[in-house]
Amino acid sequence: MVILGIDPGSLKTGYGLIDVEGHVSQHMSHGVIHLKEFKQLADKLSCLYEKISHVILEFQPQHCAIEKVFYSKNAQSMLKLGEARSVSLLAAIHKGVAIYEYTPLEVKQAAVGIGNAPKEQVQRMIQVILKLSNPPFEDAADALAIAMCHAQTYKFKERIDRAC
Amino acid sequence: MVILGIDPGSLKTGYGLIDVEGHVSQHMSHGVIHLKEFKQLADKLSCLYEKISHVILEFQPQHCAIEKVFYSKNAQSMLKLGEARSVSLLAAIHKGVAIYEYTPLEVKQAAVGIGNAPKEQVQRMIQVILKLSNPPFEDAADALAIAMCHAQTYKFKERIDRAC
Repeated sequence: MVILGIDPGSLKTGYGLIDVEGHVSQHMSHGVIHLKEFKQLADKLSCLYEKISHVILEFQPQHCAIEKVFYSKNAQSMLKLGEARSVSLLAAIHKGVAIYEYTPLEVKQAAVGIGNAPKEQVQRMIQVILKLSNPPFEDAADALAIAMCHAQTYKFKERIDRAC
Repeated sequence: MVILGIDPGSLKTGYGLIDVEGHVSQHMSHGVIHLKEFKQLADKLSCLYEKISHVILEFQPQHCAIEKVFYSKNAQSMLKLGEARSVSLLAAIHKGVAIYEYTPLEVKQAAVGIGNAPKEQVQRMIQVILKLSNPPFEDAADALAIAMCHAQTYKFKERIDRAC
């Protein structure tokens, strides 16, 4: 099963794709969509939608995992985060990809084993787990961590469902 | 020129359409898209996108006006507002409708003449200006007020452009 993880942001949105077979998760791709250059909101939203749609068409994920967000520095940041989040999700929804949400705590616990792990630790752990030659950039590492979190949670849920 | 005004919200999104010919603005349609019933975020975003797309297909607006938002009661409200806002905008962008943004102060000053006018006054003024038999529901009245604000601002901007 191919999982797309998304770490949305109004200036940079990270994405990461893993292929999960049984207990093995293999890295497929990751990247960062840069949105800072866009002065017009319409151009920014449009670019983000197109880029995520393109990634989905190329790698054909069945599931998309994204972080649930609760707090941010200020109201404007939350508004912009909501905009980036929903546009990314809509691209997935329009391609028939199922959506799953996880809290930042769940993501870090699944990827690093510590809920309050610093960013660098997440990058390093993702590099080790997915056998990458270099640690991915921060936003892409977070996106891969979200995908890894879903892979673990989903497998666990499936085992419970089979046992019932 | 047909203008679509949108008052986005995660529980209710209002829309209003006016047809502007010279100094005359005629009411075309208005309504409220109810989103409270949706438990899943994917269903909510998808429904909002489809409904706004449908309104655009039916009334063929050239411009879409929406409120700029700065503050809200809490971070979660801002996140959800951002989600509803960008999904509405994306529906317009995908249909080639140009986007314009106005502050709440600009909208109320244009529609009622007072920046801090209460909701009821906006509803009543919209009813009078657009010759409606009843005041529209709050969210739809706000959406019509946003469309009216754009009609006035755009005409003024056009006159300045012609004079230069």
